[in-house]
Amino acid sequence: MSTATDQYVTQNQQRFLDELLEFLRIPSISTLPENKGDVARAAEFTAARMKAAGLENIEIIPTAGHPLVYGDWLRAPGKPAVLCYGHYDVQPPDPIELWHTPPFEPAIRDGNIYARGSADDKGQFYMHIKAVETLFAIHGKLPVNVKFLIEGEEEVGGASISKFVPANKEKLKADVALVSDTALYAEGIPTLCIGLRGLVYTEVEATGPARDLHSGLYGGAAPNAVYGLIELLGKAKNAAGVIQIPGIYDGVEAPAPAELESWKGLPFNESEFLAKEVGSSQLTGEPGYSVFERTWARPTLEVHGIAGGFTGAGAKTVIPAKATAKVSFRLVPKQDPEKVAAAFKSWVAANTPKGIRTEVRVLSGGPAIVVNPDHPAIHLAAEAFQDILKKPTVFTRSGGSIPIVGEFQKFLGIPTVLMGFGLPDDGLHSPNEKYKIDNYYKGIMTIAHFFEKYGG
Amino acid sequence: MSTATDQYVTQNQQRFLDELLEFLRIPSISTLPENKGDVARAAEFTAARMKAAGLENIEIIPTAGHPLVYGDWLRAPGKPAVLCYGHYDVQPPDPIELWHTPPFEPAIRDGNIYARGSADDKGQFYMHIKAVETLFAIHGKLPVNVKFLIEGEEEVGGASISKFVPANKEKLKADVALVSDTALYAEGIPTLCIGLRGLVYTEVEATGPARDLHSGLYGGAAPNAVYGLIELLGKAKNAAGVIQIPGIYDGVEAPAPAELESWKGLPFNESEFLAKEVGSSQLTGEPGYSVFERTWARPTLEVHGIAGGFTGAGAKTVIPAKATAKVSFRLVPKQDPEKVAAAFKSWVAANTPKGIRTEVRVLSGGPAIVVNPDHPAIHLAAEAFQDILKKPTVFTRSGGSIPIVGEFQKFLGIPTVLMGFGLPDDGLHSPNEKYKIDNYYKGIMTIAHFFEKYGG
Repeated sequence: MSTATDQYVTQNQQRFLDELLEFLRIPSISTLPENKGDVARAAEFTAARMKAAGLENIEIIPTAGHPLVYGDWLRAPGKPAVLCYGHYDVQPPDPIELWHTPPFEPAIRDGNIYARGSADDKGQFYMHIKAVETLFAIHGKLPVNVKFLIEGEEEVGGASISKFVPANKEKLKADVALVSDTALYAEGIPTLCIGLRGLVYTEVEATGPARDLHSGLYGGAAPNAVYGLIELLGKAKNAAGVIQIPGIYDGVEAPAPAELESWKGLPFNESEFLAKEVGSSQLTGEPGYSVFERTWARPTLEVHGIAGGFTGAGAKTVIPAKATAKVSFRLVPKQDPEKVAAAFKSWVAANTPKGIRTEVRVLSGGPAIVVNPDHPAIHLAAEAFQDILKKPTVFTRSGGSIPIVGEFQKFLGIPTVLMGFGLPDDGLHSPNEKYKIDNYYKGIMTIAHFFEKYGG
Repeated sequence: MSTATDQYVTQNQQRFLDELLEFLRIPSISTLPENKGDVARAAEFTAARMKAAGLENIEIIPTAGHPLVYGDWLRAPGKPAVLCYGHYDVQPPDPIELWHTPPFEPAIRDGNIYARGSADDKGQFYMHIKAVETLFAIHGKLPVNVKFLIEGEEEVGGASISKFVPANKEKLKADVALVSDTALYAEGIPTLCIGLRGLVYTEVEATGPARDLHSGLYGGAAPNAVYGLIELLGKAKNAAGVIQIPGIYDGVEAPAPAELESWKGLPFNESEFLAKEVGSSQLTGEPGYSVFERTWARPTLEVHGIAGGFTGAGAKTVIPAKATAKVSFRLVPKQDPEKVAAAFKSWVAANTPKGIRTEVRVLSGGPAIVVNPDHPAIHLAAEAFQDILKKPTVFTRSGGSIPIVGEFQKFLGIPTVLMGFGLPDDGLHSPNEKYKIDNYYKGIMTIAHFFEKYGG
């Protein structure tokens, strides 16, 4: 395919980088009300850069939450249409004190950009825009039809796009979706992700006494909301990590033997994974499953945070009245998010300790998805990847959730090419999130090649 | 005894109240570094009021933490000496949003003063100062020798006074100590507390991965510090509330049958206690023990607060790297604080879940104490109480801890008269702490009578 596009990317590297750095300076944290204006600025930046790249019919679409950004170019009759998706919102940067440089002042070190959102997902979907610019610059047109739909609520459950997609099936009609929000299996290995876990995210609130009580005067007779929540959630898994909530494993579908077999061929060193990525004393998880199965193909229960009572410096002897925990389940194919949420609610109600009242609030939910690796777009994407990285493409899953991929399947009837250029140690959602600059350039080249191949 | 002192208190009510309100406006929160200046101001206020009341040899004694305030009057040769103790520091007011009026802007409602520290302990030890003023005003002298030692670290473990007492045995030599930091058993019932639980207060920190991880990518294989801490602490008690840590109940001494029998005569309505004081759906605690035994004479384990991971609004899908909990044990007679702390540390080390590292930091510790009810000062205090409240004095214990009482026993060899005028629903350590104004006046009268009787 075209090496002219590769040359264009190389010639424009510095500008492509500078544009991305400018984007990363916008603290578009979708979960924090105080950043609402920044999120809006990120939407405007996205729209302006899409227009500058040559896309048409640009719209900033207001929603009940943060806006969607749409744009298209539909002047390739008879050619397939690709729906490019990304998100311009980011996770909160806390714990902020662990960042070596400020999260919204991008810093370049060792060939990486360190900034919140660099890999997840600004640095990745911005490659789509630059691929479009590159193709226009070289060919004066695009080899395929494209539609861009970029959201600002991916990190908070994507409520607005979930309503928009089923209500705009004709507008969004395409042959395949393209999402860059995943990682290479390892440095230099072209990787297409063909499976994603789903997610049910909840908040559990426990209430004990009517107010915080003095633990000397009441300790021994009054229920403690913090301890009640600890006692409850402590029973949710056994010591081996197996979830003890009835019904949670209902319907869980194991990967096909061929897929499991292919995972055995992936380079993986468990002690390196432990030391370099996880950094704990041991790995955990269900006995009898490999790390790939545990992180890609098994359901999980995690407590993301817990708060209650006195947590300042020093000592305060209260029996706390309230405690709250964020509890989620990762889902695998054939698990129903609504059934999982219902099973959790029933279990919490049945297991709430004496004297404590509990409430479970479901904040978001979406099923797992798997993509058929035999789809023509997946094949061509694998070829494009191989063109640039000069190695055979591997097929993996990801333990993360990209709910929109399930919605594209359900409402538009299209599969998604999950072509991401992150690396496993990019630190998504963590302090010092990074994105490798060379992968940013290679990603733009790969996407341009994919469009060229897919356009015939 | 002297009704003249009672009259003096009545005639000076408004001024006595105004002085206390001024004291309560000082936010002397000993646990918060940002309030260090306020704590110092409270020490100065205490010293100035002691001097104004007629005490001599006033000293503000610097320590490694907050200052001690000392003063005495030793011009009653041949008469006993009373060591008056109190604390001018207070608990933090959080959760601040639950206060009906600001914690450091005292408000009067229904005959009560609402303010942090009103009952615990500013409003109570200030009665000692006003009793001294009253006795000087009526008699021109005091009927006993007195020494005042007021600290500013009671709410943070009392480290400085714990060093000061053994190093100043001669200076502090007395026949009995007087502490007003407890409550009447119920409105209008004269109450002497003859037992206090001890306390071991710790902080447990759990560490999992080296940094917060994305729960999609690592969930199923990486240990979660918040879940690890939940799993650990969830095993510390069984469902009935019995502590499961080996050695914790070693040496626990049950109250004598006569004392247990006397508790049966105390007015107590469990459903009222539940509804009006605790406010939860049920009481909890060890089966086979009465509420008095559970709160006065049995050890407890409480988690006062827990924090870890993401606890803001909305959803963040991290596997947290760190979590911390404040865990304490209330101790009863014959339990050794050091052995309890050691037993807890061993248990934590042995039960820490796979992949998690834990550290236990002991913040403070002190044993339980019991006072002999046959001591002459206790008898005279009971009579003074009966003079003012016109009912027989009852003897109770408190589930709370006043470590200094054990130290007076150990280093000075003296018992303590625990003569407090709070009420069980004063909300110590809680939002809307209050102190009944009438009890403030009656307390001053009772203490004056006690000094008169004890001076013979």
